[in-house]
Amino acid sequence: MQNEAVWLWYPGDFEIHHGMLQNFKREERGMGWPAYWYIDDCNRNVNFERQYDLDAATTFTVHTTGTGYVDVNDRKYRLEEPIECPAGPVTIKVMVGSVQGLPAIYIDGPVIKSDQGWQASNFVTTLPAGHDPLFTRPDQDPNVIEYHKQAVKPQTETAVNGGTLYDFGRAVNGQVQVQTPHAVTLCYGESATEAEDVAMCYYKQTDVDSQTPVRKRAFRYIFIPDVAPKTVQLTAIHEFVPKPNRSTFKSDNSIINQIWNVSTETLNLCSDVFFIDGIKRDRWIWAGDAYQENLINQYSFFDEDVDKRTLLALRGQDDIKQHMNTIVDYSMLWVIGVLNHYQMTGDREFLEIIYPKLESMVRYFIRQTNDLGFIYGRKNDWIFVDWSEIDRDGTVAAEQILLLEDYKTMMTCGRVMGKDVSDYQRRYDVLKKNLMTYFWDADKGAFIDSYESGKRHVTRHANIFAILFDVVDAAKQQSILKNVLLNDAITQITTPYFKFFEQDALCKLGEQKRVYQVLLDYWGGMLDRGAVTFWEEFDPQQTGKEMYAMYGDPYGKSLCHGWGASPIYLLGRYFVGLKPTAPGYASFEVAPHLDEFNQLTTVMPIKDGTVKLEKDGDRLVVTASRAGGTVKYAGHSVPLEAGVATVVNP
Amino acid sequence: MQNEAVWLWYPGDFEIHHGMLQNFKREERGMGWPAYWYIDDCNRNVNFERQYDLDAATTFTVHTTGTGYVDVNDRKYRLEEPIECPAGPVTIKVMVGSVQGLPAIYIDGPVIKSDQGWQASNFVTTLPAGHDPLFTRPDQDPNVIEYHKQAVKPQTETAVNGGTLYDFGRAVNGQVQVQTPHAVTLCYGESATEAEDVAMCYYKQTDVDSQTPVRKRAFRYIFIPDVAPKTVQLTAIHEFVPKPNRSTFKSDNSIINQIWNVSTETLNLCSDVFFIDGIKRDRWIWAGDAYQENLINQYSFFDEDVDKRTLLALRGQDDIKQHMNTIVDYSMLWVIGVLNHYQMTGDREFLEIIYPKLESMVRYFIRQTNDLGFIYGRKNDWIFVDWSEIDRDGTVAAEQILLLEDYKTMMTCGRVMGKDVSDYQRRYDVLKKNLMTYFWDADKGAFIDSYESGKRHVTRHANIFAILFDVVDAAKQQSILKNVLLNDAITQITTPYFKFFEQDALCKLGEQKRVYQVLLDYWGGMLDRGAVTFWEEFDPQQTGKEMYAMYGDPYGKSLCHGWGASPIYLLGRYFVGLKPTAPGYASFEVAPHLDEFNQLTTVMPIKDGTVKLEKDGDRLVVTASRAGGTVKYAGHSVPLEAGVATVVNP
Repeated sequence: MQNEAVWLWYPGDFEIHHGMLQNFKREERGMGWPAYWYIDDCNRNVNFERQYDLDAATTFTVHTTGTGYVDVNDRKYRLEEPIECPAGPVTIKVMVGSVQGLPAIYIDGPVIKSDQGWQASNFVTTLPAGHDPLFTRPDQDPNVIEYHKQAVKPQTETAVNGGTLYDFGRAVNGQVQVQTPHAVTLCYGESATEAEDVAMCYYKQTDVDSQTPVRKRAFRYIFIPDVAPKTVQLTAIHEFVPKPNRSTFKSDNSIINQIWNVSTETLNLCSDVFFIDGIKRDRWIWAGDAYQENLINQYSFFDEDVDKRTLLALRGQDDIKQHMNTIVDYSMLWVIGVLNHYQMTGDREFLEIIYPKLESMVRYFIRQTNDLGFIYGRKNDWIFVDWSEIDRDGTVAAEQILLLEDYKTMMTCGRVMGKDVSDYQRRYDVLKKNLMTYFWDADKGAFIDSYESGKRHVTRHANIFAILFDVVDAAKQQSILKNVLLNDAITQITTPYFKFFEQDALCKLGEQKRVYQVLLDYWGGMLDRGAVTFWEEFDPQQTGKEMYAMYGDPYGKSLCHGWGASPIYLLGRYFVGLKPTAPGYASFEVAPHLDEFNQLTTVMPIKDGTVKLEKDGDRLVVTASRAGGTVKYAGHSVPLEAGVATVVNP
Repeated sequence: MQNEAVWLWYPGDFEIHHGMLQNFKREERGMGWPAYWYIDDCNRNVNFERQYDLDAATTFTVHTTGTGYVDVNDRKYRLEEPIECPAGPVTIKVMVGSVQGLPAIYIDGPVIKSDQGWQASNFVTTLPAGHDPLFTRPDQDPNVIEYHKQAVKPQTETAVNGGTLYDFGRAVNGQVQVQTPHAVTLCYGESATEAEDVAMCYYKQTDVDSQTPVRKRAFRYIFIPDVAPKTVQLTAIHEFVPKPNRSTFKSDNSIINQIWNVSTETLNLCSDVFFIDGIKRDRWIWAGDAYQENLINQYSFFDEDVDKRTLLALRGQDDIKQHMNTIVDYSMLWVIGVLNHYQMTGDREFLEIIYPKLESMVRYFIRQTNDLGFIYGRKNDWIFVDWSEIDRDGTVAAEQILLLEDYKTMMTCGRVMGKDVSDYQRRYDVLKKNLMTYFWDADKGAFIDSYESGKRHVTRHANIFAILFDVVDAAKQQSILKNVLLNDAITQITTPYFKFFEQDALCKLGEQKRVYQVLLDYWGGMLDRGAVTFWEEFDPQQTGKEMYAMYGDPYGKSLCHGWGASPIYLLGRYFVGLKPTAPGYASFEVAPHLDEFNQLTTVMPIKDGTVKLEKDGDRLVVTASRAGGTVKYAGHSVPLEAGVATVVNP
């Protein structure tokens, strides 16, 4: 923005308000389903202030989303009317309140305007005003997201069971326009099976004629009972917030290529304004899902705005009332997500906004640690980790490893902000030592879940986190690989959520070959079932209707689920091997592990640029659009020059 | 309520949400003016829950103000549809969210209904659900206050300056219906002078024709420029929330009688849903004003609901972000207001709701006390006390005396709640001792404002609070009376706000005769100026247009201001001498000081009853509708029997 006028608000208010609206968008069988945790809203009244020293008289007009007034040197003026301002020093305040929505201002004028430099106060705290690239014009209302719209016609209309099944050929998230000679019932489905199940489909709307407003929903199929094909015309109006995508992936394996493309489509659908879990269900912002989507985003859309909005919406207002989505580990992943965002973007301006919220979040954790530095769950805290038989007696290893990484986050981000981080270093050292003393089992060569129960039970989760967050040395890493990750006697991960972390850890330990096979089996398996987006969960053993069931609901499974897009992250981070080695890719490396590909051409985003990698047999060519990169391949370490194709041979 | 269905919400949400709306109702010369402090809103999503053990199957229907669903024994049902429920144990949950307003439910059914017994959760805290006697029917929407309406026709239409002045003869708070052959401008005034001032009147609406929606405003006069009388017909639609008034006051002094009646009108207008300061300006809920209005209310409407709503709205959500209206002493008066409410009503149910909020408020004070136990102002805290030249260097005496009374409140209310109050007793003792050591000046026979400045400056304020809150013994009381209250060398109180406390203190010291004269001069003076309601401030020296100016604004003064009704309190509390001596008037006394009246018949409310007092010369007859009272008069102490007229002669 800098010198361009934009809509301004109290920082975080836009994200918190729209995050609240997002968490109210769930629908199930005619019922609304607001999220079941405490949800903040934006401030109701905000004061904006700025000083100028004007060379000449000027005029400006203040637009707002609410009620209020303008104060110029202690004299009050009306909103929406031109205000004359004489030369000299001037203090301008704009008071705005909105009883139902986001209080925001837009100031039009040649000199005095709502560009960078305004402070916003909620009468408790004063901070630089917030803004968003979606809202830059005075005729907009930042209470209303302006979705782009795309008409989608059914690809097929098929007579089924006396009715008609419309297949739109893709996942649509939007309203349906209906041209019908009589009132009909719309039965929606992400699958044909669901749409055809008139009694049990997740979304249904009855008595729809050509005038009926139809709610925005996510679907691929619509079934209309008791209607012959070509009687009723449907047009789906897909809604989306456009995001440029600089990434491409084209290899000699067409299944992997399709996995990449379907992953891109899946993430794109689940990230209009925020990272949500799924477009049909829950439509909520979950911190665990968002954490993974952030990592995937880094290798596809590289959309910093969705990232920032999601982090601010999850955190809410400054006072912490409970853990994010009530889950202790989700709060802890949120902290690591801030670190990821900073490593990805090097965005110091955002770090300044989020740092106080980061610090109060970690202080909140510290208040629930015991004498050994271990974090424990309190009443109403959900120690989730994963849907798995984890021994949760007393303190739990997985949570301690996340807390270690949170302390590291505070050290990294705190140093950038010029803070004294010695307290976090001290806490890190104590916790690390006690973690190894109490939770590392030398006989088993692995972390146990709980030491208090005496059961010394091993699950994969803490061990996976220990790999990902560099808690153990190379010898212990190999011990974990052997004794846990590759040990079939240890209960398998069953959720795609934790499968993400497991694949991540396997790749980090050089097991790309195994992961490649998982890509083909698990994601390729979904493609075999005709998936146009990736699912919340997939079990290759299931067939027919049972494929769509989850949580005890025949259509409870979400077939377009953000974390389903994780192949993008795995391919980018571990096969192409691209990662920043300093914040914002000031330096970065490309360390490919591409044995599984004979030919590959891929473009991946970095901050303010791209990296192109071409592999043809043994020949590898890497081109970065800007400097800072190093290719590490086959024992070589070759620096990249901006725009210069660098050839590396083994 | 008990077994009657009513609208339910998370306790406090109704009051906080409507309090927020109230604090956004200010208007000035075409500008909205939201209150300039942090304002909470209600929760956005709430879960209601209750268990039943049903003898037989039953049916119920859930209405809400938002979106959500009903959960019966872990199965979901839609809102607004009859739900069948089999016999046996059943757990019912209702999830409701509202993105813009108050989440509330109403359950219709013969057995399962929204009566007493439901718990409400905001997912952080679970408490008995809140309700309000204004919302008891399923066809209502607790987001919308249902004002009763009364058409008021102008009493006169007078040609003035080429236009027409309409005098409605009373203060109106409502919209105007306009029948006009052409568009006109409405200029409002609480005074004729204001309405006729087309350029500067506080409220004005231009281009009004017979269809134009006209905003709700408070006024007595409307002036329409450039229009002859009888051309435009105006009907004011006065809006109000009806409150029964059991009190009457009729004496042989018609001025005092009129003061009583105009006071009643003034308080009535300023207390529709909450105690606000004034109906034209600010229309805000100020804790200082509300504190006084509560005391006045006790002797007129005895409206417990307005009291409770105001206390809850002022306190807001549990997290404390700043002092009420940003003023430290206002927060402290709020605490005392809770004590007053409890003494007045004995309402233990309300005390249970408010006690955690009371305790966290007082704990908030304690966090800003120093080693001597003195409360000090922090950055952004407003140590107000009064608009007066108080020496605010370091800690200030008046604030310490309020804090003492707050500790007493915690002891009284805490004991009722069965809490250990020894910490408050200890803090009280320390603070009391240090107050006397540092702030009592034995030479001056009075409290000084500040000891840190070394100026040893005496104002009336701390000394008045010391009388009111029983901080000093009888000897020191007399010392304060002589050296401060009756000492013209001490700067006079200039604000009606603190004049209230001063008259209160004077009466408490037996100076009814002086206060009687103040009633006649100050309030009688306003009546002489034609007041139909009492003003924010009155200076008998002022005449003409200057009477209406305040805060540097020619019409900034509010002519219908809640604290203007204080004669009701003074007459009831100190002339009639009625007060509870145990919570809820379980015991009460009538200790009249009626030398100024030869004849008087008055009825005053007590909890669940009334006291009637008739004086005719020396003969005094007191009748209480219920037991518990004692008449203390002329050395007698006579118990009152329910419904029996007791004659007391000197």
